[in-house]
Amino acid sequence: MGPVGAAEQVVRDLCEAVGKHDAEALRQYFTEDVVYHNIPMDPAVGIDAAIAVIDGFFAMSESLKIENLNVAVRDNVVLTERIDTFTMGKIVAPLPVMGTFQIRDGKICAWRDYFDMGQITKMFSGDA
Amino acid sequence: MGPVGAAEQVVRDLCEAVGKHDAEALRQYFTEDVVYHNIPMDPAVGIDAAIAVIDGFFAMSESLKIENLNVAVRDNVVLTERIDTFTMGKIVAPLPVMGTFQIRDGKICAWRDYFDMGQITKMFSGDA
Repeated sequence: MGPVGAAEQVVRDLCEAVGKHDAEALRQYFTEDVVYHNIPMDPAVGIDAAIAVIDGFFAMSESLKIENLNVAVRDNVVLTERIDTFTMGKIVAPLPVMGTFQIRDGKICAWRDYFDMGQITKMFSGDA
Repeated sequence: MGPVGAAEQVVRDLCEAVGKHDAEALRQYFTEDVVYHNIPMDPAVGIDAAIAVIDGFFAMSESLKIENLNVAVRDNVVLTERIDTFTMGKIVAPLPVMGTFQIRDGKICAWRDYFDMGQITKMFSGDA
């Protein structure tokens, strides 16, 4: 495997930075017109809306860690298979996720995450 | 972009063949020990279990068409972003899905699909 390309690197940097639990610090990874779509929810359009959604995830968790299981790249598109682990008090909720990232000029202009909302609700209630 | 590699080709062939609505005809694409995991459900372990799950999807739909939006490959792993469209009478249910395929000796030995079960339930009831 060759060196990590620029498109993959920005995604890996974002995933790592999520662990710092500071939504504003993530602004540097997105284009102004980014569309961040958690597929079971409505899309967040524009960087302010995207940061607000991420801030909401941070507000309801003490930590959120992203682990990439598989990453593959074609041109400016980075596809990921991940475990996103939310910790809230005694509840540790490892959510299986796949996500698509589209990169433009070194920043993420689209992010779509696919997961089961029922699974997240169940885990967050401490029932899984 | 170069020619499609062998790992990607088997995934594209499977996706195309799904449109024929014949579960047994898909057996050729899987290893005997394939694990087919629709993430919101229990995994189907072994080729007979996998074919049975696919047959169940076929039984509840008149057609199932897979459209690949994005495909990316790293080594023997193929990641896909797709629209899987189920048709049942007047109901047309386009389900957003991402899937991971692991390939061994030219066949699929693991298939994991990520989607929102609530979305599928809602669409199948004709409510979306």
